[in-house]
Amino acid sequence: MKMGLIGLGKMGGNMRQRLRNAGIEVVGYDRDPALTDAADLADLVGQLGDSPRIVWVMLPIQAVPETLATLKELLGEGDVVIDGGNSKWTHDVPNAELLAEKGIGYLDVGVSGGVWGLENGYALMVGGSKENVAKALPIFEALKPEGPYGYVHAGGVGAGHFAKMVHNGIEYGIMQSYAEGWELLTAASAVDDVPAVFESWQEGTVIKSWLLELCVRAMQEDPNLDHIRGYAEDSGEGRWTVEAGIDLAVPTPAITASLYARFVSRQEDSPAMKLVAAMRNQFGGHKVLAEDENSRDDASDRLGEGAAGRAKA
Amino acid sequence: MKMGLIGLGKMGGNMRQRLRNAGIEVVGYDRDPALTDAADLADLVGQLGDSPRIVWVMLPIQAVPETLATLKELLGEGDVVIDGGNSKWTHDVPNAELLAEKGIGYLDVGVSGGVWGLENGYALMVGGSKENVAKALPIFEALKPEGPYGYVHAGGVGAGHFAKMVHNGIEYGIMQSYAEGWELLTAASAVDDVPAVFESWQEGTVIKSWLLELCVRAMQEDPNLDHIRGYAEDSGEGRWTVEAGIDLAVPTPAITASLYARFVSRQEDSPAMKLVAAMRNQFGGHKVLAEDENSRDDASDRLGEGAAGRAKA
Amino acid sequence: MKMGLIGLGKMGGNMRQRLRNAGIEVVGYDRDPALTDAADLADLVGQLGDSPRIVWVMLPIQAVPETLATLKELLGEGDVVIDGGNSKWTHDVPNAELLAEKGIGYLDVGVSGGVWGLENGYALMVGGSKENVAKALPIFEALKPEGPYGYVHAGGVGAGHFAKMVHNGIEYGIMQSYAEGWELLTAASAVDDVPAVFESWQEGTVIKSWLLELCVRAMQEDPNLDHIRGYAEDSGEGRWTVEAGIDLAVPTPAITASLYARFVSRQEDSPAMKLVAAMRNQFGGHKVLAEDENSRDDASDRLGEGAAGRAKA
Amino acid sequence: MKMGLIGLGKMGGNMRQRLRNAGIEVVGYDRDPALTDAADLADLVGQLGDSPRIVWVMLPIQAVPETLATLKELLGEGDVVIDGGNSKWTHDVPNAELLAEKGIGYLDVGVSGGVWGLENGYALMVGGSKENVAKALPIFEALKPEGPYGYVHAGGVGAGHFAKMVHNGIEYGIMQSYAEGWELLTAASAVDDVPAVFESWQEGTVIKSWLLELCVRAMQEDPNLDHIRGYAEDSGEGRWTVEAGIDLAVPTPAITASLYARFVSRQEDSPAMKLVAAMRNQFGGHKVLAEDENSRDDASDRLGEGAAGRAKA
Repeated sequence: MKMGLIGLGKMGGNMRQRLRNAGIEVVGYDRDPALTDAADLADLVGQLGDSPRIVWVMLPIQAVPETLATLKELLGEGDVVIDGGNSKWTHDVPNAELLAEKGIGYLDVGVSGGVWGLENGYALMVGGSKENVAKALPIFEALKPEGPYGYVHAGGVGAGHFAKMVHNGIEYGIMQSYAEGWELLTAASAVDDVPAVFESWQEGTVIKSWLLELCVRAMQEDPNLDHIRGYAEDSGEGRWTVEAGIDLAVPTPAITASLYARFVSRQEDSPAMKLVAAMRNQFGGHKVLAEDENSRDDASDRLGEGAAGRAKA
Repeated sequence: MKMGLIGLGKMGGNMRQRLRNAGIEVVGYDRDPALTDAADLADLVGQLGDSPRIVWVMLPIQAVPETLATLKELLGEGDVVIDGGNSKWTHDVPNAELLAEKGIGYLDVGVSGGVWGLENGYALMVGGSKENVAKALPIFEALKPEGPYGYVHAGGVGAGHFAKMVHNGIEYGIMQSYAEGWELLTAASAVDDVPAVFESWQEGTVIKSWLLELCVRAMQEDPNLDHIRGYAEDSGEGRWTVEAGIDLAVPTPAITASLYARFVSRQEDSPAMKLVAAMRNQFGGHKVLAEDENSRDDASDRLGEGAAGRAKA
Repeated sequence: MKMGLIGLGKMGGNMRQRLRNAGIEVVGYDRDPALTDAADLADLVGQLGDSPRIVWVMLPIQAVPETLATLKELLGEGDVVIDGGNSKWTHDVPNAELLAEKGIGYLDVGVSGGVWGLENGYALMVGGSKENVAKALPIFEALKPEGPYGYVHAGGVGAGHFAKMVHNGIEYGIMQSYAEGWELLTAASAVDDVPAVFESWQEGTVIKSWLLELCVRAMQEDPNLDHIRGYAEDSGEGRWTVEAGIDLAVPTPAITASLYARFVSRQEDSPAMKLVAAMRNQFGGHKVLAEDENSRDDASDRLGEGAAGRAKA
Repeated sequence: MKMGLIGLGKMGGNMRQRLRNAGIEVVGYDRDPALTDAADLADLVGQLGDSPRIVWVMLPIQAVPETLATLKELLGEGDVVIDGGNSKWTHDVPNAELLAEKGIGYLDVGVSGGVWGLENGYALMVGGSKENVAKALPIFEALKPEGPYGYVHAGGVGAGHFAKMVHNGIEYGIMQSYAEGWELLTAASAVDDVPAVFESWQEGTVIKSWLLELCVRAMQEDPNLDHIRGYAEDSGEGRWTVEAGIDLAVPTPAITASLYARFVSRQEDSPAMKLVAAMRNQFGGHKVLAEDENSRDDASDRLGEGAAGRAKA
């Protein structure tokens, strides 16, 4: 089995390795000359030989359209292009239609596994026709984890990225759940050794999971997470999950809360809370903090334990 | 009509003024010698003359128990104590029972109006028996706004503070709603003059309100709220509203979101988001920010517009 | 001043009346022969005479593209088309560009006021160029409420619908806030007469508003809202507000909660909660209810007050 | 090792079995004569012989105070009472103080494991003094899962129930996350076989967990969950988690959303949404549904696809 693989970054590079370990012949392409096996896409396609040629695209979403346009020029009838990146599922049908104009097949694959995938295998969620899936099956077999799980042909074009999107939405919610529990345990004085509690949860509990193991691992490196800022990026999938829910009138309150917590984590100051503070000042004469004022420790005033011993508005 | 008023702070002081303007004879007590009309509570009660004596307590919640205990000593059969502060409604029945041991009546009154109450009148939500309400009615008439609204005898002991608590819960939700709209308008580039939009909303819209007028007033003073920090305290009522909802299995998602937004506004860094960042780092090799690292501007990386043009995990 | 008005439904019909009351000559068009002043759009444009002709489109979002396409054929240089319907703000720039191909100007106007607008005036949020706004100013003057508020030229094309969208998002949050307060008051036994409490809030409180007056009005007609189902549709604006927030990384937790509450109100049964019930059954042996089983009153079991006096998992 | 165990329900009965399998001599007591090993608590204590006697209480929270009062009479210096039920952590210190009056030790133990615990072992989170923990250690060893995890001495009295409470709060959030993903996948048409997607997620993904395995198991029994109502009870721990967060000013938006989703799942009709519907009717003339009207299928009207082709307010 021979294939092309475009994008040899953190994910793509490891995937090439896992594929080669399984005996797949991979021609990789990357802009970085130190990583690439081909001079350009034409060279890559040339090295693949006769149809059906399979080319796996592992690029950030912005780079996909141009690459697909080029592949449309270079490939032909019976070939298959796989978008395995974190692309938006709504792009898949248009992409498939574009390539179909030249008889090129299209599969969308949601890939999970992160830095652990090289060793443990990547979970794959595949969308597209049975015919195209059959052509790429040896690749999927090589990438997926051993055992019965970790691979699903989820449906037609778009189903793979849709399933992966929902996977990531769920991931947001689970991460946020552990995180809220962590904050509660560390804020309270009841529990002496919070990392020990997390560690113990790894067996016999309802909440044992792989993410819990990662929490434990992180706490082993830095028990109070002192060296990490409470700052989290979000990838597109979380946003798309919430948007898909809105589109379908499906409420996703926990996933949405998780997304918003990430938004807030990136704000130096909240414009919304400025207006809340301004309103409180207008009706109650409540003190507002100036932008450069540092009074976060005056929490004693919070519940009415006011200096002058008088009722507040 | 004669009455005692304990606590002459921002609220109590203005209330004394409004009561006197209406011809009520008020004997005020405050720890501050510059404000008080009585040397101590015994003096205050002495100045009130014969029963039925009415004493209005306008103190922060922490100061109430000791004051009620003293008043129980000083007052007797047929007198009435009014707790008009921001007390928790669950305290009212025990307070009433305590005073009833000596035949002293009890009313709980939720008071709204803030710094505007002196001129416009205070909204009053009253809990207690009809008999005790009747004794205090001239006081309520003096404090309330003119016109048919602004006063309600909401029910038995506790009903006044319960109604006021819910009022404040609603207040949280409304403030948060305007605040989210403000942030959205200022974050988008579509609208040129956001304060002008808020100003225009004061007539003809579904969302015209007194709080909207306060928003406009605040924006007139500081159009971009540049001089205000996005930092908001919460009083007890918001918390109690959510707790009451939990107790009654009544979901209050918007009010709760408003309360949590205030919690977050007071955090320098979020412990929860530290763990989210730590997990992302564990599974995806996502960079975490060190506590002293200032990279809040690298939002370009957020949606995958990554430097190296490669797919992310 | 002469103008065309397309769409004479509940909103459009009342607007025609208010415009005529102000002396504007309105040629209305509607599919309903009983309402229309023109046989078709060509007839309408013919009746308007010479340029600059102003045509106000007041149609549901689905009907807008076809109508604009027709108007592009019929109108010309210097004319102005106004989209005053509840259109999505992202449609405005493409619409404006389409019409600009023939020199036709475009304004987007968010209109608020509902059934009250005929009498009280409509709040208008306008997007577009100063030049086009100037042409339509007499129309805006006729529609808007009297007094200094209720009209804003919010910015360029799209700003009007964007501002209206945010207005509606805020509206969702405020409505939800009152609604949560209502549910809490009615669920608790503390307050005897909940409508009386709402009525009293109309003066002296922080939460007095026009929506509060509508609540009171509804409770006067049906004090316990016994004859109304807890079922609420959502228009597009609430969804678009949340989507815009996601796009801009602006958290809108209270508005989002309000939107989701409407989603849930329309579900006969929640697929999500089916899975929650299924999981509880799997790990705890918790009883699940069959689809046709009606045991919503077994709340006594909820907090562990179990029949057999034993601990639950 | 000998011990008493009070409460032989679903949990207690299985625990007795696991303890006996490990060679612990258990004297069980239950109100049900078919289950009990002792006539009453006095008989149970009598059968335990000399101090130190260990009595594990496994009862619903309401039954705990009376049982502890009785045990205080029957036990003495050096004995230890363990509350292993789902008790509220705030009860633990008062309970401990009560028993300490007679020199009786107290441990609080949060127990997880449900119906799987008999075979796999129960996760234990223990609060109390080292001395008392040492006395009960053989019991904990027998109950806990094999291997290094599943047991933690979390801190002083109350720490065990606090840790278990947070565990359950996290559990709520994780369950809700999967549930939202499920609803989204089933609502969309993109994915053909949703159970197959869940099944595949069990390896190679970020979200693999024990709860995911239970989801898969439930879907194997009933692929569309057709026979389960979307109705979920909540135990006390979810509520207490949110309350603890409020107390500590720790925002728990995802866990709270999960709790509220359960509240809503138990409502036949939402009082809050009645008021939202009533307001919409007041300002926009939007149709309200009568209580007995069944028009949940008129979703076509939802986004403005109105009958008459006209704009809505």
